Amino acid sequence: METALYIGVDVGAATIKAGVVDDAGHPRSAVNLPTEPGRGSAFGLAQIGAAVRAAADATGSPLHRVAAIGVAAPGLLDIPAGVILEAANLPGWRDVRVREHVASTFGVPTAFQNDANAAALGEYWSGAGRGARSLLLLTLGTGIGGGIVFNDRIVEGAHSHAGEVGHIVIELTNPRPCGCGRRGCLEAYASATAVAARAREALAAGRSSTLHQKAVEELTARDVFDAAAAGDSLAGEVVEETAFYLAVGTTNLMHVLNPEVIVFGGGMTAAGASFLDRVRTRVRELAFPVPAAGTHLCYASLGNDAGFIGAAACARQLVRPVP
Amino acid sequence: METALYIGVDVGAATIKAGVVDDAGHPRSAVNLPTEPGRGSAFGLAQIGAAVRAAADATGSPLHRVAAIGVAAPGLLDIPAGVILEAANLPGWRDVRVREHVASTFGVPTAFQNDANAAALGEYWSGAGRGARSLLLLTLGTGIGGGIVFNDRIVEGAHSHAGEVGHIVIELTNPRPCGCGRRGCLEAYASATAVAARAREALAAGRSSTLHQKAVEELTARDVFDAAAAGDSLAGEVVEETAFYLAVGTTNLMHVLNPEVIVFGGGMTAAGASFLDRVRTRVRELAFPVPAAGTHLCYASLGNDAGFIGAAACARQLVRPVP
Repeated sequence: METALYIGVDVGAATIKAGVVDDAGHPRSAVNLPTEPGRGSAFGLAQIGAAVRAAADATGSPLHRVAAIGVAAPGLLDIPAGVILEAANLPGWRDVRVREHVASTFGVPTAFQNDANAAALGEYWSGAGRGARSLLLLTLGTGIGGGIVFNDRIVEGAHSHAGEVGHIVIELTNPRPCGCGRRGCLEAYASATAVAARAREALAAGRSSTLHQKAVEELTARDVFDAAAAGDSLAGEVVEETAFYLAVGTTNLMHVLNPEVIVFGGGMTAAGASFLDRVRTRVRELAFPVPAAGTHLCYASLGNDAGFIGAAACARQLVRPVP
Repeated sequence: METALYIGVDVGAATIKAGVVDDAGHPRSAVNLPTEPGRGSAFGLAQIGAAVRAAADATGSPLHRVAAIGVAAPGLLDIPAGVILEAANLPGWRDVRVREHVASTFGVPTAFQNDANAAALGEYWSGAGRGARSLLLLTLGTGIGGGIVFNDRIVEGAHSHAGEVGHIVIELTNPRPCGCGRRGCLEAYASATAVAARAREALAAGRSSTLHQKAVEELTARDVFDAAAAGDSLAGEVVEETAFYLAVGTTNLMHVLNPEVIVFGGGMTAAGASFLDRVRTRVRELAFPVPAAGTHLCYASLGNDAGFIGAAACARQLVRPVP
């Protein structure tokens, strides 16, 4: 018997990724189309449809062999309704009925999910969390996002707002401003943006560092991690503090959720094995002994494919319901 | 047809509470026996058995009409194994196989659960969260505990450690010491113990207050809330700060879990409606707009019965599995 096939679509600000995924969670194809958000949501919906067709074409599988389609999207969503309410990175996309459009275009059961939630389910299904019963994903990039999976189910929340793990407050006395407009959020301390900002502040305070060779406005988290690896002491301190802040947030989440596996994804995973080791060490110092000893902390393994693979996992759950 | 009956048992440091609960979550009896933890775990297990029999006797229902028994317990547990590993308030109770003992004594399916988790399921089933699909309980007492229910299921965690919501860190620069040995935990700011401690510190700093009439070592959270209600300005500030700290913790948890209902239980609910209103106002200021507007915050409604009613709910789930 042939394996069941699903198509997952991951709608990003720049790119729509799509792929055919088999019943074991392995991609059979992966295609990219530009989102061109400035052209509006009708164009975007057409691109989603084109990405679905291109993903199927790339495998040679006819679309009628696809059991279900899943779409993952960013922004403020109504997940049960299948709607993008609004999205900062997709200006002009308002009240876009994504699921309805895809389902009626292709006549196939269609799932809809938040992109970070979908990525969490992707890592749970066939990535770094494979075989676990519960998983928390933290995506460390420009911001910090996340997704929670317990017993095969995504925790969406009552208002499609669960997993906003970057916006837990960890500091009250002297809180850093966060991109969300609030203060003291984990994201303001441990995102890639925050790493660069904290390094800039240390440089502005007059500390000597090889990072002065770089134009300050161009400084990235990557530069900081590279300089730390090359022995720069200011950069090393910023990295060490980042590991501490991330461990504080991770420990908070462990004490609430106690997942079996915590997966770090996003661009900051380029910081490599030594950074992960620092985070693990700090978590062992901060967390209660039992979860500290038992929780598996690791990097994501699906990279940029996690979103569409996870969207396919959502599609699969539509037609093969969780027991 | 007669309703199915369950017996729930809530093992506390001082008292073992038990009751017969019907299929709608209503208690038909409630009995108390002393735990006398100093007499050891064999005595404690015998008292649990005696409480089960007394609960049945109090309704006149023969034990063979009971479909299942549930036991809720404090301390460090292995929930799937049904074992109390150790408990600070039950010295000498080590590796106590509670579920096995009760199941073999009565020959009835027996559930075992953490006491705060059970209380959360109790409030979800027939208390303040009735009709909701997801609930977070925070118990505000000597410490801060909690329990999480999503889609009828308790989130136990991979190592029986989920719901330790008092031990999320909210302050790094000047963190208060917590009873757990760590620093900056929510419990160190917003538990009843912390309210009294913060009031004592303000008094020691020389502020005038009617609270000076009380011996400082006897000062309780209740005294602080009473003085605030009577117009004492120092007490009023402590209460206002408590509402803020609790709102910070509650908002953090909303951003992670986004439950439909958040229920506050424990002794500090004696602070009354005006305190709850202060917490609600602060949460609306701190949280993202959608969950801030949509999350229902309320006091628990089952009082001290939540534990045994929730234990009965766990028993019911054993014989009527969640779909």
